This record gives sequence, C-alpha cells and structure tokens, in this order.
Amino acid sequence: MQLALSQPRLISLAAGFTDNESLPVEDVRALLGGLLRTRKSGRPALQYGSTQGDPMLRQWTARHVRRLDGGTGAGAADCSDRMIVTNGSQQMLYMAAEALCDTGDIVLVEDPTYFVFLGILQSRGLRARAVRMGVDGLDLAHLEKVLESLRKRGELRRVKMLYLVSYFQNPTGVTTSFEKKSGALKLLRKYEEIAGHRIYLLEDAAYRELRFRGRDVKSALAVGGGTDRVIYAGTYSKPFATGARVGFGILPEPVFTAVLRIKGNHDFGTSNLLQQLLARALASGRYERHVGRLGRRYVRKALIMSQALKGNFPPDIEWQEPEGGLYFWAKLPRDIRSGTKSKLFKAALANRVLYVPGGLCYADDPARQKPDREMRLSFGSGTEEDIREGIKRLGRTLRSLR
Amino acid sequence: MQLALSQPRLISLAAGFTDNESLPVEDVRALLGGLLRTRKSGRPALQYGSTQGDPMLRQWTARHVRRLDGGTGAGAADCSDRMIVTNGSQQMLYMAAEALCDTGDIVLVEDPTYFVFLGILQSRGLRARAVRMGVDGLDLAHLEKVLESLRKRGELRRVKMLYLVSYFQNPTGVTTSFEKKSGALKLLRKYEEIAGHRIYLLEDAAYRELRFRGRDVKSALAVGGGTDRVIYAGTYSKPFATGARVGFGILPEPVFTAVLRIKGNHDFGTSNLLQQLLARALASGRYERHVGRLGRRYVRKALIMSQALKGNFPPDIEWQEPEGGLYFWAKLPRDIRSGTKSKLFKAALANRVLYVPGGLCYADDPARQKPDREMRLSFGSGTEEDIREGIKRLGRTLRSLR
Repeated sequence: MQLALSQPRLISLAAGFTDNESLPVEDVRALLGGLLRTRKSGRPALQYGSTQGDPMLRQWTARHVRRLDGGTGAGAADCSDRMIVTNGSQQMLYMAAEALCDTGDIVLVEDPTYFVFLGILQSRGLRARAVRMGVDGLDLAHLEKVLESLRKRGELRRVKMLYLVSYFQNPTGVTTSFEKKSGALKLLRKYEEIAGHRIYLLEDAAYRELRFRGRDVKSALAVGGGTDRVIYAGTYSKPFATGARVGFGILPEPVFTAVLRIKGNHDFGTSNLLQQLLARALASGRYERHVGRLGRRYVRKALIMSQALKGNFPPDIEWQEPEGGLYFWAKLPRDIRSGTKSKLFKAALANRVLYVPGGLCYADDPARQKPDREMRLSFGSGTEEDIREGIKRLGRTLRSLR
Repeated sequence: MQLALSQPRLISLAAGFTDNESLPVEDVRALLGGLLRTRKSGRPALQYGSTQGDPMLRQWTARHVRRLDGGTGAGAADCSDRMIVTNGSQQMLYMAAEALCDTGDIVLVEDPTYFVFLGILQSRGLRARAVRMGVDGLDLAHLEKVLESLRKRGELRRVKMLYLVSYFQNPTGVTTSFEKKSGALKLLRKYEEIAGHRIYLLEDAAYRELRFRGRDVKSALAVGGGTDRVIYAGTYSKPFATGARVGFGILPEPVFTAVLRIKGNHDFGTSNLLQQLLARALASGRYERHVGRLGRRYVRKALIMSQALKGNFPPDIEWQEPEGGLYFWAKLPRDIRSGTKSKLFKAALANRVLYVPGGLCYADDPARQKPDREMRLSFGSGTEEDIREGIKRLGRTLRSLR
C-alpha cells in the first residue's frame, strides 16, 4: 500500500479501499448540516457518549440487522442492548480476540482468510489452525477433522473460536451458506463438551451489504439456539464511508461484558459525531439508497474486471465470478508463484501493477504447506480505466513469464 | 456515570465531560461544510487514510506542539514523522502499555493517578507502583526511593515506564514542573543501566491546553537529550470536541514502529473525516480561538466552584485552586471516608450529588495503605447552577455527618 501510494503511475489492484467516485459526499454534507444546524442537536454530537455507543444508532442497527436476517430466529429479538459500537469492524475483531484468547490459544480460520486478522493473532501470540473452504464456504468435514485432530493431541482446551468471513470473503469472494454456519455451530457445540468451555463463532460480516447479485444469506445470529455462541461483527465503513469508520458487534454474555470493559480501556467509546451521522443516515433512508447505488456501481466494476480477465489472462488461470464484495481471486497454474519474492510479483511491479499475493492470506499451520500461487485482485478503489489497464498489464506480465 | 445518566435530578460532579455550552457547533459546521462542499475535497475525507494518520494533521500538530514548547530543545525538530494519530489520547495510553509491557511488568504511576489508566494496567496483568506527589508534581526523592527498592528486590528488570499526567493532573489538578520532568528522566536513565533496558516516560498531556491561569510548562519533549525516552500523548478531544475523539502520540523508535503495528491491528487508522476536520480547525485558526474561549469559560466555572466550596464546605476540608483542567481535589478530615461504601458517598447520593471517590485513583501498591478521604470534583460538564447547587448539596451532606 505504501508502495502504491508513493508511485502515482502504479495501478494498485491490491488495496481494499472502496470505490472513490461513489463516496456519499452529498449525503454526508446534508446529514451533518442537519445535525449541526442548531446547538441543541449539535452539542450532543460533539460531546462524549457512552462506551457502548449511541442508543439511537444501536436501535437503528439492530432493526437493520433484523431486517437483513428476515426477522426470524433468535436474530429477530432486539439486540441493541448487547451491541457495542466500534471503530470499524476491525476493532471488534481485535477486542474479541483480546477478550477470548490467552497467549498460545488456538483460533480456527478459513484457509485462506483476512490477512489483517492473521496479524492480530500473531501480535497476541495466538495460533491459527486452517480449515479448508469449498465454493459455498467452510468445508465442514475438514472442520471436524481439524477439531478431532486437536482433540487427539489434547489441544482442544486451547481452542477458543472459529473466525469466519462469511460474506464475499476477503480474499476469495466466497460466501458461506446458512446451512454451513448452522453446521459449524453444531460441530463447535459438540467439541465444546470435550473442551470444557465455550467455543465461539466470530462472524465477520464486513462485506455483507456489498452484494450486487443473488440473494442475501442469513447470518449465524439466525441459527436457532445459536446466538449464545455467535459474535457478529458488522460495519458501516465499506457500505457507506470508509472515512467514517463506524462498526459494531453483537455479542452474547459473558463476552459482551468483557468486550465492553476492553472498549472502555481502548478509547471509552467511538466518536459520537460519527455515530450520530450514521444514525441519521439510517433513519433518513439515505443509507439504504446509498447501498443500492453502490451495488449498481460495483456490479459494473466487477463486470469490467471479469471482461478484462477473460480478454487478457492466459486460459490456464482460474477464477470465480463474485456475487459481491470487492475481490477476484485468481489461481495460477502450478509453475507460477505469486509471492512478494516471485518473478511474477517483481515483473508485475516493473509493469506498474500491484496485487495482493495469495500467500499473505494463509495462516502459519504446520498441517499443510502454504499455497503460493494465487492473487487477490480488487475492483474496489480503481477507476474503470485502472481496472482495464491494470488487468491488461498483469496479463502481459503473465504471458511474458511463459 | 451510568448512575448519573439514569437519574436526571442527580447533579454529577463526577464525570470528566467537558463544558457542554462551549462545544464548537458553529466551528464544526463551518469546517465540515467547507470540507464537504465539493466532491474533490470531500472524497478523501470519506475514504480510508493511512494507519499513521493524515499527513496534514500531523504537520499542523507537530507545529502546534513545537509552538507550545517554545521551539526549543529536541522538541523543536519536526516530529510529524514519528507521530501517530489515535482515537483520543486514551488509545495512545493503551497502545503504549501494549507495546512496552508484558504480563507482570511494572509501571510507575503518580499517587493518585488517572483511574482509567489503572484499569488498563489491571486488564493487561501489569503492576503499578505508586510515586508520591508534591504541589509541583512528582516527588523525585520518592521516585528514587521506589526505584532503589525495586532494584534491591531484583524487580528493576520488570520496570518499563513511568506514567505522568503532567498538566492539571487527573485527579489532583497538579502540574509537574519542567525541572521535575527533567529530573525524572535523569533518574530513569540512571536505573536503566541496572535494569538492562530502556525505561520510558509516558507523558499524558491531555489537559495541557485547558490552562486558564499562569504560563504553560514545557513538555518532556523539550528536555535536552531526553526525547528518545519520551512518549508524548496529546489530544484534541478535551480542548476542542470530545465527540470528535482525535488524539496523537509522539514516539521514539523502536516504540513508534511497535505502536504503529498495534494501531494497524486495532483499527488501521483513525477516521479520516475527523482528522481532516481537526486539520482544518488548526489551519483556519478556529482551533486556537476556541481554546481561548474555553479558557475564559473554565476560569469562570472554576471560580464558581471555588466560591461555592468556600461558602459551603466545613473549614477543615482542604483543596488547592487549580490553574487549569477540570478538577478540584478536596481532602477530608481524618474521621471522614469518601469511598463508594462510605456514609458520605451514600448520603451524597441520597442528596442527589455524585463525586469521584479519591480511592478509585490510587493504585494497588503493597507499600502503602490506599487513602480513602478525598473527592474529585469536576467543574467541566455541569452548568454554573449545577456547580453551585452540587457543592451546596455536598456541603450540606458533609455537615450532616458531624
């Protein structure tokens, strides 16, 4: 990213930034103008709030998540009381790890997974164990195999949670089906009894609302009887404005109380100004209209990337068409590596195009070798011309290696 | 705080909230209106920025701190490159503890000190050792005594930093003189050699700009040759808008790199919208004018509290007149306790007035008994009438106990 920012002629298909042109400048101007119009409405936005977060924003968010989940299951209940507003969903991920895990503990992750989360685990001295993925998300048979092997080695007592990027996963773009979430919770519950403590499912729904094709999948909150093991991390950063950085967590006890205490220590509450901005965006309907516009924008950018890939990439490179999110995940043939030290990466940089090497998204897991022949390609932040030209440069680079 | 918020007729002299009436609603409206006027200026504010923070805000902040420190010493150099923008200074305190200390390590703190910092230490399994204070701050002779006693017990290797709330300390209102900061750094350096590692001075300057009498004291950054051991935590929350929650740290290597990595894991950067708001507040001169207004406001509120104390408190209760900040620190005679389980606290609540019991601000230190006969009284958030009536109720409560 530093590299991309310092070389203006470089096209970055690496950054997870969102689309620049569709950032809601007019919406935010109008919403903040209204909020700050009078001292009466403006002052509470410029004063400290509570550590848990603005009650109005929590109520709007609870309603919003309930609507997304179709108002069914345990997710139908009002969850604003067990919600904590955070600085993006990233802070929620960090605090969940801080609350649940001690040094040396094990977190199950998808293989591959969100690389910043792997950084969190590493920084806290936690171990990741990788669970394979299929085209509809987590491989449940492999999850059971991993849990069983941990049981055999007496390490189940160190397993504290399963981390799932359940919508248009970063980096693969894969969405985990509702049935798989339900199945995963059932498996965790089974092994809990042997572990002697709760094993939580941390559902990272950061990309959920960036869907531009197909229908939304219900969250793990909607699994009957599952909500006391589900930590749901959502955000308004990606679907509204990454510069506003407001996310939220929905947490069962005793995790809620532990995370609230941690939030008090980290910063005792997210900016009230940002929270009230988001509350007004939701209440006014501007948020929903923006999400609609965003979908129409991303479907177009994804199509442009898809066409560029078809037109420029050698035929032995594989990828799946995403239904949402920001990424294509391309698999190279066996003889090409993609890591930062690879010929491809260096040649791509020389051709002024940057991608995220797939290897960065794989946990250190002694059970398998780290794959090194994938690329994460983002259509989020670039212009349409950047996407076309970036893929063209990458295609040229790939062909030059043959 | 929860208690105060739920009982509207209760007057809280407890909360560390800032003055509500002087919150800069008009300034923020004008600044955000300008920032969001065009898509060109608005979009960067609504997009992700860097983990370290907005370069313009860092440059304005570096200039600002340099000006406060009189442009002398090592503090005269541009420190924007080793600055990290944070969610209030609170996040900086948390990350400094996270970067420097392992479980069981020792942090030296003033006795008493900021109670949320004690909460951070506790939550991270760190031990606090208390250093006495005089009217001009830290008692250097006692600091040496504490260090010497830690050396004798072989615990010096666990000492990682000294935490100093150097301006209008929370809770006592005391400001540490420049000479004492310099002296403390010299002592730390001396014991470093025996400890075998660096011992840092974490200077919490949260209240620095809330001065309404007397002259500013230079920060520890201005101590010649001292800056490679000083972590300076500043904030715009209290002097501008607590609802905006922007703070910053100035850090020496290798702490800078460690904290930057932690910030990446916590939230990979503070809201760009808030950062650009603050950068514009500084650049436009609105920030400085607001700080001036705030001083005139707080000098008045402090005077009202002072007069109310003189008029209502029994003569055997002691306090010092603060030169800035938000607090009076009142010492009760020997026969009255102030803790949450004391007669006084309960009677005060029954009379609908809340204070912070002094005991909460003292670290658990086996070397002394925890004092329990002080009250922190804030003139920050209440109206003038609240301050008068609150102190009157408290005076009545105190007299009723005789």
